Amino acid sequence: MRGVATTVTRMRPGPTNSLTDVPGLQVGHATLRDSAAGSLTGSTVVLAPPDGAVGGVDVRGAAPGTRETDLLDPRRLVKRVNAILLSGGSAYGLAAADGVMNGLESVGVGYPLGSPGSVVPIVPAAVVFDLGRGGRFGARPDASTGMAALTAAAAPGGKGPVRCGSVGAGTGAVVGKFKGGVGSASAVLSTGAVVAALVVLNAAGSAVDPHSGELYGARFGLAGEFPALRPPTAAELTAAAEAGLLHGSVEGPLRATTLAVLGTDLTLSKAQCTMLASLGADGLARGVRPVHTMLDGDTTFALAVPTRPEPELDEMHELLTAGADCVTRAIVNAALAAESVTTSAGHWPSYLDTFPSASP
Amino acid sequence: MRGVATTVTRMRPGPTNSLTDVPGLQVGHATLRDSAAGSLTGSTVVLAPPDGAVGGVDVRGAAPGTRETDLLDPRRLVKRVNAILLSGGSAYGLAAADGVMNGLESVGVGYPLGSPGSVVPIVPAAVVFDLGRGGRFGARPDASTGMAALTAAAAPGGKGPVRCGSVGAGTGAVVGKFKGGVGSASAVLSTGAVVAALVVLNAAGSAVDPHSGELYGARFGLAGEFPALRPPTAAELTAAAEAGLLHGSVEGPLRATTLAVLGTDLTLSKAQCTMLASLGADGLARGVRPVHTMLDGDTTFALAVPTRPEPELDEMHELLTAGADCVTRAIVNAALAAESVTTSAGHWPSYLDTFPSASP
Repeated sequence: MRGVATTVTRMRPGPTNSLTDVPGLQVGHATLRDSAAGSLTGSTVVLAPPDGAVGGVDVRGAAPGTRETDLLDPRRLVKRVNAILLSGGSAYGLAAADGVMNGLESVGVGYPLGSPGSVVPIVPAAVVFDLGRGGRFGARPDASTGMAALTAAAAPGGKGPVRCGSVGAGTGAVVGKFKGGVGSASAVLSTGAVVAALVVLNAAGSAVDPHSGELYGARFGLAGEFPALRPPTAAELTAAAEAGLLHGSVEGPLRATTLAVLGTDLTLSKAQCTMLASLGADGLARGVRPVHTMLDGDTTFALAVPTRPEPELDEMHELLTAGADCVTRAIVNAALAAESVTTSAGHWPSYLDTFPSASP
Repeated sequence: MRGVATTVTRMRPGPTNSLTDVPGLQVGHATLRDSAAGSLTGSTVVLAPPDGAVGGVDVRGAAPGTRETDLLDPRRLVKRVNAILLSGGSAYGLAAADGVMNGLESVGVGYPLGSPGSVVPIVPAAVVFDLGRGGRFGARPDASTGMAALTAAAAPGGKGPVRCGSVGAGTGAVVGKFKGGVGSASAVLSTGAVVAALVVLNAAGSAVDPHSGELYGARFGLAGEFPALRPPTAAELTAAAEAGLLHGSVEGPLRATTLAVLGTDLTLSKAQCTMLASLGADGLARGVRPVHTMLDGDTTFALAVPTRPEPELDEMHELLTAGADCVTRAIVNAALAAESVTTSAGHWPSYLDTFPSASP
């Protein structure tokens, strides 16, 4: 083993600074936001290439809602994943995976069972709690929402920069007292390999340091990434504290959950993907406090689209380090992309509406 | 479920701000530091009451060195732990647990097998890599070191404030380019219950933000805990950067590992202890970056000395939140208690010798 330099702070993001910087990964959102229908939710699909991506998962919260995660255990048979579904709707939202499976089956993508067209699409899924935030408890994603997100992911736009903010599975997301949502970030390793993350920021904890009003994750930005992000003014801090925004609390029978999907173009085993997903959970911990609580279902996935060789130890170390940071930086980007939302069920201000002087 | 307020920032530490604030837990160190012998290592024992403490563990690093951790799985038989051994010496240091077992057997403490005196002491253990730091690769803890740490823990001094710095299992500890060591912290929950942590800070990653020179964990201090801890001056930062101290790197075939033991006086199941240990790993992630890498064996234990009732959901949430923070705060205290060390194998400056203007 050669020396391992922690060069993360000298890294650069990929061209879009989002998950689609991993060649072969495409992302699509389906957003359900209709005040008449009482909806504020949606689904997001991360689509792998037709022959799949190697997958891993780390479920750390005490209240997870998941599907097809057990097969990601390195001891289980199936190695390749066709898509990951992230969805609002709590456990009901797992139904959106039905639509993703149907859509993939219709194009013959899935685990092959021998005869032509006989496939079982492998679509691990995890959900966030957002029930009722749009005003109606029953307004939640179903199979058609999953299908719509898959269609968006498969379209040419699915290859572009990941849309962030109140879209897809992040539509109804809330973090502490603030509006949450989708965020993404990427990094190019010293070898040229890529690692990236997409998060759905929806936590019982907070992304904001109550003492300074700064986003916990801001200090982990790459050089120039959050250039003009300033600490809030004292007046803004006082106002936010008086509005009860800073000492995050979760009221009522609420569940939260932050989800993440990490991706890389390195050739990883399922066990290495599991390790990458596990480091992603560290990235969550640096961006949200507390996290992985009894109220969260926090789950991180990792996908390897095997384009580059298997990493040596040095590169694996760099991958894990940068992967964790991508999750933290994606959390910051989610908070910065969030927009204030008011529904009949409540009002959730965005970070930048609360602290305008922090604005980049 | 009632509202859950994240009141952590309004918490206070216990009387000693260390692990011994948990009634019934005692801590002892055995320190091997002798330049003629080439030793810079040691062992630390956390001693439970005679009838044991309920235990849990979370092994997250890729290079762990452990013993008796499998029995902490909630599905396994044994529920009570008699002591936890933390030790230097890498996998060789696991031999120190032999001495702890012998010492406990001699006083009849252990899992009872029926006939008088027939006991098997339950002593889960984990080690840090510090081989050769004192100058001689073969200078490492053995059974007598474990026995000495147990004797120190069982003595009246074992009930007192935990000694921090370059003692016990932290004697040869290094974090990034800085001297590491033992640290501890505690918190009193709103219900009066106690949670506390002891860490052995010895990481491939760094506890210092390379941009500001601040300790990552400093922002998580309780009110007044790190009152005079200031950011380093620009001159100190420049000097540290030029000395290569800030962009932590691990050279050579090195393994690191940060260990933590959390404790509480609440009545927890083994599964709840496992959850507390898991949140302790989040606390590590906030204090050290990167952590849980291919080079670390990071392992967190949790012990519940069942004095108070089982926690309701609110109290469990507060316990997990404060427990994670205790680990982060203990990391800060370890860095602040560290003293610069020079041996024939190298020089490791302390945080405060490097940044004197930060000094509280």
